[in-house]
Amino acid sequence: MNKVTIKYCPKCRWLLRSTWMAQELLITFEAEIQELSLKPSGVGVFEVIANDSLVWSRKEQQRFPEMKELKQLIRDVIAPDKSLGHSDKKN
Amino acid sequence: MNKVTIKYCPKCRWLLRSTWMAQELLITFEAEIQELSLKPSGVGVFEVIANDSLVWSRKEQQRFPEMKELKQLIRDVIAPDKSLGHSDKKN
Repeated sequence: MNKVTIKYCPKCRWLLRSTWMAQELLITFEAEIQELSLKPSGVGVFEVIANDSLVWSRKEQQRFPEMKELKQLIRDVIAPDKSLGHSDKKN
Repeated sequence: MNKVTIKYCPKCRWLLRSTWMAQELLITFEAEIQELSLKPSGVGVFEVIANDSLVWSRKEQQRFPEMKELKQLIRDVIAPDKSLGHSDKKN
């Protein structure tokens, strides 16, 4: 049972970005993600957690993830053997 | 801790409708919903659960909910005293 959680700051207007990312992840990982949770959180918070691993924190990385890198980070946790095709190139 | 879950059938291409509804609910209930989960489910499944109450089942109701009625149904579970303004008219 793979669960991905996106914690976002609604006051910062990051809801639409978060639901866009949720759509991308649920399409790419249709068979692998059983639950994707959106959690309104405090000011400035944008975090992505895959199962128990914090794979992205805007406060730490000082930016939002590119979709390609976020998919790689999540793949590495929930489906290490899954190829992401064009999303797998490291550039 | 209010949690709303949308179970949807990805094979039926109901992801985009479900994430649209998630956005609407997270905007309307920004202060009341602490977690909104999207769960890919079986063929023909479209269900909305508020905390432990099944507030909508496409199989039972034979259609998708109007956004206005879905908000009323969820409000009645998670924030009974909350006014939905124009969404509160029953027509």
